[in-house]
Amino acid sequence: MSKEKRPWGGRFRKATHPLMVKFSESLSFDRRLAQADVRGSIAHAHMLGRQKIIPNADVNKIVRGLREIAKELDSGKFPFQEALEDIHMNIEARLIEKIGAAGQKLHTGRSRNDQVALDLRLWVRDEIDSIRSLIRQLAGALVGQAEKNLSLIIPGYTHMQRAQPVSMAQHLMAYVEMLDRDNARFFDALKRVNVMPLGAGALAGSTLPLDPEAVARELGFDAVSRNSMDAVSDRDFVIESIFDAALCQTHLSRLAEELVLWSGDEFGYVELPEDFSTGSSLMPQKKNPDAAELTRGKTGRVIGDLMAMFTVMKGLPLTYNRDMQEDKEALFDAADTLRICLEVMTQVICGLKFNAGACERAMESDYLLATDVAEYLVMKGVPFRAAHEIVGRIVRLAMGRRKPLRELSIGDYRGFSGQFSDDVYKLFDPVRSVSARSTPGGPSPKRVGAEIRRWKQKNL
Amino acid sequence: MSKEKRPWGGRFRKATHPLMVKFSESLSFDRRLAQADVRGSIAHAHMLGRQKIIPNADVNKIVRGLREIAKELDSGKFPFQEALEDIHMNIEARLIEKIGAAGQKLHTGRSRNDQVALDLRLWVRDEIDSIRSLIRQLAGALVGQAEKNLSLIIPGYTHMQRAQPVSMAQHLMAYVEMLDRDNARFFDALKRVNVMPLGAGALAGSTLPLDPEAVARELGFDAVSRNSMDAVSDRDFVIESIFDAALCQTHLSRLAEELVLWSGDEFGYVELPEDFSTGSSLMPQKKNPDAAELTRGKTGRVIGDLMAMFTVMKGLPLTYNRDMQEDKEALFDAADTLRICLEVMTQVICGLKFNAGACERAMESDYLLATDVAEYLVMKGVPFRAAHEIVGRIVRLAMGRRKPLRELSIGDYRGFSGQFSDDVYKLFDPVRSVSARSTPGGPSPKRVGAEIRRWKQKNL
Amino acid sequence: MSKEKRPWGGRFRKATHPLMVKFSESLSFDRRLAQADVRGSIAHAHMLGRQKIIPNADVNKIVRGLREIAKELDSGKFPFQEALEDIHMNIEARLIEKIGAAGQKLHTGRSRNDQVALDLRLWVRDEIDSIRSLIRQLAGALVGQAEKNLSLIIPGYTHMQRAQPVSMAQHLMAYVEMLDRDNARFFDALKRVNVMPLGAGALAGSTLPLDPEAVARELGFDAVSRNSMDAVSDRDFVIESIFDAALCQTHLSRLAEELVLWSGDEFGYVELPEDFSTGSSLMPQKKNPDAAELTRGKTGRVIGDLMAMFTVMKGLPLTYNRDMQEDKEALFDAADTLRICLEVMTQVICGLKFNAGACERAMESDYLLATDVAEYLVMKGVPFRAAHEIVGRIVRLAMGRRKPLRELSIGDYRGFSGQFSDDVYKLFDPVRSVSARSTPGGPSPKRVGAEIRRWKQKNL
Amino acid sequence: MSKEKRPWGGRFRKATHPLMVKFSESLSFDRRLAQADVRGSIAHAHMLGRQKIIPNADVNKIVRGLREIAKELDSGKFPFQEALEDIHMNIEARLIEKIGAAGQKLHTGRSRNDQVALDLRLWVRDEIDSIRSLIRQLAGALVGQAEKNLSLIIPGYTHMQRAQPVSMAQHLMAYVEMLDRDNARFFDALKRVNVMPLGAGALAGSTLPLDPEAVARELGFDAVSRNSMDAVSDRDFVIESIFDAALCQTHLSRLAEELVLWSGDEFGYVELPEDFSTGSSLMPQKKNPDAAELTRGKTGRVIGDLMAMFTVMKGLPLTYNRDMQEDKEALFDAADTLRICLEVMTQVICGLKFNAGACERAMESDYLLATDVAEYLVMKGVPFRAAHEIVGRIVRLAMGRRKPLRELSIGDYRGFSGQFSDDVYKLFDPVRSVSARSTPGGPSPKRVGAEIRRWKQKNL
Repeated sequence: MSKEKRPWGGRFRKATHPLMVKFSESLSFDRRLAQADVRGSIAHAHMLGRQKIIPNADVNKIVRGLREIAKELDSGKFPFQEALEDIHMNIEARLIEKIGAAGQKLHTGRSRNDQVALDLRLWVRDEIDSIRSLIRQLAGALVGQAEKNLSLIIPGYTHMQRAQPVSMAQHLMAYVEMLDRDNARFFDALKRVNVMPLGAGALAGSTLPLDPEAVARELGFDAVSRNSMDAVSDRDFVIESIFDAALCQTHLSRLAEELVLWSGDEFGYVELPEDFSTGSSLMPQKKNPDAAELTRGKTGRVIGDLMAMFTVMKGLPLTYNRDMQEDKEALFDAADTLRICLEVMTQVICGLKFNAGACERAMESDYLLATDVAEYLVMKGVPFRAAHEIVGRIVRLAMGRRKPLRELSIGDYRGFSGQFSDDVYKLFDPVRSVSARSTPGGPSPKRVGAEIRRWKQKNL
Repeated sequence: MSKEKRPWGGRFRKATHPLMVKFSESLSFDRRLAQADVRGSIAHAHMLGRQKIIPNADVNKIVRGLREIAKELDSGKFPFQEALEDIHMNIEARLIEKIGAAGQKLHTGRSRNDQVALDLRLWVRDEIDSIRSLIRQLAGALVGQAEKNLSLIIPGYTHMQRAQPVSMAQHLMAYVEMLDRDNARFFDALKRVNVMPLGAGALAGSTLPLDPEAVARELGFDAVSRNSMDAVSDRDFVIESIFDAALCQTHLSRLAEELVLWSGDEFGYVELPEDFSTGSSLMPQKKNPDAAELTRGKTGRVIGDLMAMFTVMKGLPLTYNRDMQEDKEALFDAADTLRICLEVMTQVICGLKFNAGACERAMESDYLLATDVAEYLVMKGVPFRAAHEIVGRIVRLAMGRRKPLRELSIGDYRGFSGQFSDDVYKLFDPVRSVSARSTPGGPSPKRVGAEIRRWKQKNL
Repeated sequence: MSKEKRPWGGRFRKATHPLMVKFSESLSFDRRLAQADVRGSIAHAHMLGRQKIIPNADVNKIVRGLREIAKELDSGKFPFQEALEDIHMNIEARLIEKIGAAGQKLHTGRSRNDQVALDLRLWVRDEIDSIRSLIRQLAGALVGQAEKNLSLIIPGYTHMQRAQPVSMAQHLMAYVEMLDRDNARFFDALKRVNVMPLGAGALAGSTLPLDPEAVARELGFDAVSRNSMDAVSDRDFVIESIFDAALCQTHLSRLAEELVLWSGDEFGYVELPEDFSTGSSLMPQKKNPDAAELTRGKTGRVIGDLMAMFTVMKGLPLTYNRDMQEDKEALFDAADTLRICLEVMTQVICGLKFNAGACERAMESDYLLATDVAEYLVMKGVPFRAAHEIVGRIVRLAMGRRKPLRELSIGDYRGFSGQFSDDVYKLFDPVRSVSARSTPGGPSPKRVGAEIRRWKQKNL
Repeated sequence: MSKEKRPWGGRFRKATHPLMVKFSESLSFDRRLAQADVRGSIAHAHMLGRQKIIPNADVNKIVRGLREIAKELDSGKFPFQEALEDIHMNIEARLIEKIGAAGQKLHTGRSRNDQVALDLRLWVRDEIDSIRSLIRQLAGALVGQAEKNLSLIIPGYTHMQRAQPVSMAQHLMAYVEMLDRDNARFFDALKRVNVMPLGAGALAGSTLPLDPEAVARELGFDAVSRNSMDAVSDRDFVIESIFDAALCQTHLSRLAEELVLWSGDEFGYVELPEDFSTGSSLMPQKKNPDAAELTRGKTGRVIGDLMAMFTVMKGLPLTYNRDMQEDKEALFDAADTLRICLEVMTQVICGLKFNAGACERAMESDYLLATDVAEYLVMKGVPFRAAHEIVGRIVRLAMGRRKPLRELSIGDYRGFSGQFSDDVYKLFDPVRSVSARSTPGGPSPKRVGAEIRRWKQKNL
């Protein structure tokens, strides 16, 4: 940057090296904070005026100028100057260009350290609102599909092995639970995001009679920073937000894994919407679950963003260190990634077609009703451990004969325990089995249906 | 494990390979869940009795047996059997040994999947309470030292360069703010930890008339899992707890960095307590800040634990997968590390001796009062940007002459701006400078003192 | 530690705080370096004698004493004293106990900083040898199964969708390639591990006439450290070794994922050895692929170990900082995890039973021969892009009619391109398709067979 | 993308959803592979011609067209079409636009899976060459400064405490050792990077008579992939390259940490070049070490990139999964970050001014010569442990009297050991102390000077 344009050039004799300009610039990414910067500056100017630190006439000019700048930014007409190192200097320089000397007073009682903290907090606050809304949309899509597939029975899996019958509805609703926690976690983070740092200056407050409380009120903050050194040094709100994104993304990766598996020939439970799939440049028959794969793969980058920010902050002394400039790209990347993955998954879930035939075929073996047989014995008074052992042996017998459980004779059963009688054959019906599991949180259509209704109400 | 001892041996013909026994055992680490397991089992047994799933006589035997086991565990007399793969099987086997057939009924309506989720949640809940208490203790130690050093002035740093005068008290209080956020974050996590999963069975609930609400009440849970598949598959509460630990540990690493620097000859601001320092096996004169270095270094392992858990969960389909056994060691390691670091840092902070002489010497140069000079001009009506530029040039002049600002003549000052008059020399007093910065959150002793009082009341 | 026992107590007045003793001890984990420490000390003592820094009579006593200590360590009779902070002090104290004043001379010209670097390098060198041998064993098991299943045809997958026919042998041999790279990477790491640091002292060499070259020769090192400050500060060899372990473990996680999928009912390609599987405490019919799941899950901890070490080293100034004590647990954990996973996977691979029937059924649809049809057209002169488009439309037609490609009529084919003639039907044979793909690295049994032979020779 | 433009559209009925187009596009980042793609395609076309798979006339047209495209790319005139999903399709479409039907034959015997693997390997190979050259440049800058500061004595530090005298030259040369290992590690990685994957097709080779060996020769590869499934599935070379970058960056972060500390008022050992420093928007006197701070901070993103790629690959089954598209941004980011940090640090090191006065002041206390006193006693026959204890007590005495060691009387010394005589006072000269430490790798100017000469020769 030429000496003249630098906001801190007074004591320097040499111009900044072009390589250093390129190395240290942040305009290429912090321009996303532009509107937040304008909003923050307007509130700051109002306060400076009210506190009589600068004349009201200057405040009026500043505010008018900033509003024009906001429009220029909106319409894509703002003349970004790469020579100015960041968005804050761009906006201030533009303001001075527009309104002259009054513009030189805007930065009174403020440092870039508290200014950037303010802008970033405004940005994160809005972004969390927006992400929470996308989370609710995806949850809504899952609830919608659950409602339509309340009676579609599939194997529930543990260890990726068929375990017990459940419904597709319950399986989908498990992801709604995860998303609900994500939503709550982001909400909790807001408490620590929505704190107003302006007034902290570079690190040590100001001798000017600033009124941070008034700025906080104007900008809708819940609180004002209680320690100016912490205010400019704190990036907890960035790390916590990236963490919340990483955990939400990890949930999406689990859902994505299931879509990849379910849409393959071996499972065949679902067909993915064609407009979210792609083909192969070599193999003409392919229809690939790219949307799910990319969602799963992008989990890496969000976790990487989190790791990046932890590494940046580890062992940094107070207060602001330039290392912290690295916060923004990691944060933006995490937010953008989660946002588009939520949008894509919402569309994919809405567009899923469930293949009842494949689900039925997967239920043909009745070994996954073995637990019901054990519980049958328990209800007849057999201690659970003994019941479990008995049924284990029955399964081994059936496997040896390559027969389902329902084709063993009552004599076979009674050979293992006198508690068996003919009613045992009623167990071998997946629909009955699912309905009978009506514990709270269980798979019975009644329970799952109630959950679906609860969620639909909650979401309104 | 021999075939006989396996709780799931019914369908298996071969004994588990010794290498597999070693590979898959968890007793070496999950024995820490022993007391939680007993508490959970007692509540489960009570519920089974109330619901008439097993006879009350059996319940009484079970509860009595479990209470004896709790005592054996406490006194170190519990006969752990490595051949039984985990703590849950150890306790159940011991119960059956003690009370016979009734013990075989305890596992009724329960799977290890929901059992281990319950035990882990009980453990995490207690651990968070305990860690929050240690956080408050360290905060208390910092507040105590801040109170004693309210008037000790040191340079505040940005970019590790001396920036503006602050007080040691304010610097220490910045860490109290960080710890306060950590405390709040752990508290928020409890909402997602304190949910009762029992009744979920392996993944799909139960056909037995279980009453999870009653179990939750008896064990002090706020809620019951709303989806049995999620209940056994969810490790969010583990990841969130490790994250909270990692962020708190990162704060400790920042404090530790400062203690390492401050205790070195170059800064010399503090002397670390001798009983938390060590010497060198070669260099007789050394006194090393090991406690701080180890605290800083251990940040790596807690962040590593977090990355480990994210990697484990990424892309896992529902519901329980054995990969999730990896949750416990990462969690225990993170909790143990944070816990001892909090304890050590509390002692170290309490034992710090502050070196007023070194702090004073660090304040000798008055360049770090340059911002006060700029603000002086602002109050005389000079626009901030112009004032900043003027003072930058004054600093350059002073540096060129190797003089402090206070030794420039009034003529020198007025050569830069006609707004300067003799009162400018009043600025060159760090005590005045700190006192004058009385913005909310600022360094003035009045502000910091009020914060200290607020914290002392809050902490009671 | 009591003042008397500390090797650096001279300048200290206070005993180390018990909490600090617990916090800073490393004996609980660094005792694994015991034999390396003895070997290093013997070589060091020999050198001290040859250089006439200490009398040969003392050297003889020291060496005899250390050899006795080695035997005590081997036989489990070494009297570890927790009050001595680490293994190095334990061994030195034991030596002095055994041989008196001569033992006080062993540490001449040495610091714990270079001593611990030496011991760790000796340990890593041996461990890499051992891990490389385990890698070769697993590769051997894969080669063995490939040889037995050279003609077993399965679908090759991209995007987890059936893509083109390959052989089980080729699929397994892909993992041999990965393991071969792991082997090479560990071998390359040895160059940077096998460098001798003794002589560096605490950081700044020694005024004594030490002969590091001689020590290096005696201990089999390839080189001597060229900078004493780097020698005590360098943990690159630890990080690189953990990285190599993490990448190898990631390969195992991919193999594990496939075993989990392949052993499930949906694929059914393999049956896992029963003695490496487990059952369910609730569901009597389950046979779970725990060995594979745990291997996949343990990937998290090795990656976590790597992240831990990066975090520790990031931003540490020269030379030794106590943070670096954290290197050992991460390293040991990574090595132990990889080692047992390699052993377990070797057993699992050897014990796999392949299910030819399931593989055949997976090949029933001939859509995955569509690429062969496109290449057929190419050989008849149709530009590839046109051929690909044509076959894509043919696949769509066949799917619409729910027919395999082989059941479309020649008229159907010629309707898309006049280049089709009756020989197109020869394409619909997976055996022919695999055999025809005889590009280098391709799936034809001839190619894969040659690879298997090459590997068997190489491995000898 | 419109149906017409998709290279795989044959079997699809619906156009890709605009959100999916945005989600799955890679043109925004993979355009960096453009030149590699052209080079690879030219070699591929040559081979197709030689093998008579396509007519030589077509080959000539293709090669001519591709060369024109290379020029368009160079001159910024290539008409990128965002509607085409990636760089490969852009180039192929442009080729067909230029040369018509012959262009449709280029993709014969090739899939995007092996094509992208080839392009990426070409890119990484070039990038490693370039990074290795930058590493050597930074090493050269350090060697240059070491040469100029061979006799500048500073305290060597352990635990950030002054330990023993060393020279600035040796300190700087320690970083040369680190960079030398980085260089070697990248070189080793090349073995695994420089393997030619073309011919692998989508995963299963080809029925066409391809000649991968010829392509490898033309493109300068050392080897051809030995397994087509591995060839398209392998991203080890990406992960290994990012790891090498992360470790090199970690070394830079250590150097950066020292520059930050050394340029602060407390140390004052160096002055950073003004054109790589910046000032403060608030505090006029500030000169901040931004170049060093940013370098240190950017370590986070490279480690994050590594974590991202591990997370992506963990648990992915063979062969190509779309998750792997995430490889490029992480790789590019790691390479770009390391590259600019190496460039910046080279400039910063070249521009450093060393402050001899500050270094001298730091050497005033002679406690850091205590080890020399202990070694003095050793040479007089006192066992090391006894000598260490004696000198420890002497240091305590001196500290108590607030005196340097050189001001204790000979009587004081002899009170601790009769071995002391007047020659002890010769020890208290840092220059002598450094010169006397002439062990290999030690700080004596002779040793360090020899290392500097060795490096200067090696680097030529």
